[in-house]
Amino acid sequence: MEPIRARLNDCISQMPPSPIRELFRIAHDPAIISFAGGHPDEKLFDVEGMKAAYSHVFDTQGGRAMQYGVTDGEWELRQAAAQRIRGTGISAEASNVLITSGSQQGISLLAHTLFNPGDVLLCENPTFMSALQAFGMHGIEFVAIDTDEGGIVPEALEAAIHYYRPKALYTIPTFQNPTGITMPASRRDHIAQVLSESDMWLIEDDPYSELRFTDERVQPISADPRVADRAFYLGSLSKVLSPGVRIGWIHGPDEILERVTVTKQGTVIQSSTIDQLAVAHYLETNDLDKKLEPVRETYRQRMRTQVDALDRVLPTGSYIAEPSGGMFVWVYLPERYDTSELVYKAIDAGVIFVPGAPFYMENPNYQSMRLTFVSAEPDVIEEGVARLATVF
Amino acid sequence: MEPIRARLNDCISQMPPSPIRELFRIAHDPAIISFAGGHPDEKLFDVEGMKAAYSHVFDTQGGRAMQYGVTDGEWELRQAAAQRIRGTGISAEASNVLITSGSQQGISLLAHTLFNPGDVLLCENPTFMSALQAFGMHGIEFVAIDTDEGGIVPEALEAAIHYYRPKALYTIPTFQNPTGITMPASRRDHIAQVLSESDMWLIEDDPYSELRFTDERVQPISADPRVADRAFYLGSLSKVLSPGVRIGWIHGPDEILERVTVTKQGTVIQSSTIDQLAVAHYLETNDLDKKLEPVRETYRQRMRTQVDALDRVLPTGSYIAEPSGGMFVWVYLPERYDTSELVYKAIDAGVIFVPGAPFYMENPNYQSMRLTFVSAEPDVIEEGVARLATVF
Repeated sequence: MEPIRARLNDCISQMPPSPIRELFRIAHDPAIISFAGGHPDEKLFDVEGMKAAYSHVFDTQGGRAMQYGVTDGEWELRQAAAQRIRGTGISAEASNVLITSGSQQGISLLAHTLFNPGDVLLCENPTFMSALQAFGMHGIEFVAIDTDEGGIVPEALEAAIHYYRPKALYTIPTFQNPTGITMPASRRDHIAQVLSESDMWLIEDDPYSELRFTDERVQPISADPRVADRAFYLGSLSKVLSPGVRIGWIHGPDEILERVTVTKQGTVIQSSTIDQLAVAHYLETNDLDKKLEPVRETYRQRMRTQVDALDRVLPTGSYIAEPSGGMFVWVYLPERYDTSELVYKAIDAGVIFVPGAPFYMENPNYQSMRLTFVSAEPDVIEEGVARLATVF
Repeated sequence: MEPIRARLNDCISQMPPSPIRELFRIAHDPAIISFAGGHPDEKLFDVEGMKAAYSHVFDTQGGRAMQYGVTDGEWELRQAAAQRIRGTGISAEASNVLITSGSQQGISLLAHTLFNPGDVLLCENPTFMSALQAFGMHGIEFVAIDTDEGGIVPEALEAAIHYYRPKALYTIPTFQNPTGITMPASRRDHIAQVLSESDMWLIEDDPYSELRFTDERVQPISADPRVADRAFYLGSLSKVLSPGVRIGWIHGPDEILERVTVTKQGTVIQSSTIDQLAVAHYLETNDLDKKLEPVRETYRQRMRTQVDALDRVLPTGSYIAEPSGGMFVWVYLPERYDTSELVYKAIDAGVIFVPGAPFYMENPNYQSMRLTFVSAEPDVIEEGVARLATVF
């Protein structure tokens, strides 16, 4: 068996499994309170509504639902997606929407279609580690851009463009994962201007913006007409309807999306016709925004509970970034701690979080940690933080 | 807008859309009788059974179904897949099964995980063009192996291994697409021996074997213990239950599948939890083999109708390869014809087929054409062949 093993190891596709996914396995232990991962609370899912949508599709167009569909997505779902995207301020049409099996597929398809190995991608540091995994699989090099409390610093972006000649910027401007930072409108305006003067793509990932805790909504950078020729806006139903159904989308210039569609054709042919038609029907017959209102309020209360509880127990000198939406609280402990080690003590104490270091592509902060507040009810959050308090 | 366009064109991922998918668009015109594509007949789908399976899942585990799942697949479905794989003669366990969103994803994940750009893959010539598309997207080089009426010639395989040092063999040994050829057991035995002496992988694609028209079943090459350390066996429910649901699987050595799972994690995170649980429940509560019996008989009759009708109208000197299962009839016309041109005349006459040339990676045969017999009822097949008769 040796020669075949040797050849396996002679392959570039060597990458460690995502540390976050490994933690997910531990997090499944019911004895452990999980602040890791980003699983929406199942009790808030509209199971009855989804059941009805699937039944309707099987009753009215079962043959079509079980048949091959098209690579770019069923037209009804592209229309429903375009409508949701228009709600953010982007003047979207269904013809500019490619349906994906979740945002991760969208990132992966863009990585495959727009980049050559060795191309440079600019990112926030820290950023969403699964995006780094998807880009990294295609041999893309990452360069961190300076950020502050308002996100990417435009002057730093400008300098990086001239120095590295990057192919694209990847950013999560709203309720960023993991930091929770939201880029203000004036900053987005400046970023759009800088991008419009460059020859690079914008990949704007926006899975969390509908989970806002205030009435304030900031338009995506992609809504700016100056970047319309280069902006890819990624949306997903994972955080607002169901992660299990795997429905997301890319909005972008249609002639480029045609190329992305060819990549999708070669990698998966199409997304599930059944899921697409059921979700399209669900979105047509339900007011998702209205259904999200109590979810937002529930998550806001849980965030409040978690931040207040952490504030009481974290060591002096800790910093808690309170988010105005999304799913995560980001924390810096004092210098004497290393969260990569602390997490094992925490697991022993019956609680788990995600150490911050793996979110960094360079200069990791070992005192950082990410905690989700969406998965558990307030009393469980209190208990989890009480367990966490024992490890300091 | 020019600089950004220029950078797009500076990208390796330049590939034409699959010609077969382009033909699908035309084939959707209801005025045209389609022998193109490979769409199972919707009227044979078990819509009621699938509706019941989805409803059951929402009723009994709706929260889990709508939640994130695991990358390698829901355990119940891995068990159901292992059981189906054991039915072929492979001693499969659920732990050796990775669920994929259809076989195309399986091919794509293996291409990404096992190969470096420039590595050589051996294939039948002609072969399934979408597989070539998936492998080609990763910069893999193809080398055709000599085949005869029993499929791959073992001596040719041996010679190619020594000359090219290929990374893998890709083969569809049963009811091959597009030729319909099935490799006999003795040939498979010989191929397994040659592979076992090499340091290369076997990628065995088997989407059609359950659509057999006789009682004869030949074990997959992957069932041979000599290749157990290197055999990846791809199965799919697309041809026997539903293509729209996008459920397939890879059986292989578990420690290698772990790496493939990491690739899947980076590209799509997971397949639809809803679809997986519904299909697992469907397979647990239905006897799919029993349900397939009338489908096999229906397709066999349609094949008979198509072959007999073609035999009456094709020009003298044509060759019709009558398959003993699967979905396709493969035809060679006399030398004066070019099916790549003839297909446009056929469309004008109201019928469509797939020209054979795109299935070849080298030395295309321009007289070849592929016709499916599964999509239409016998009288429609007769009418389609009658229309085809007018173009010669």
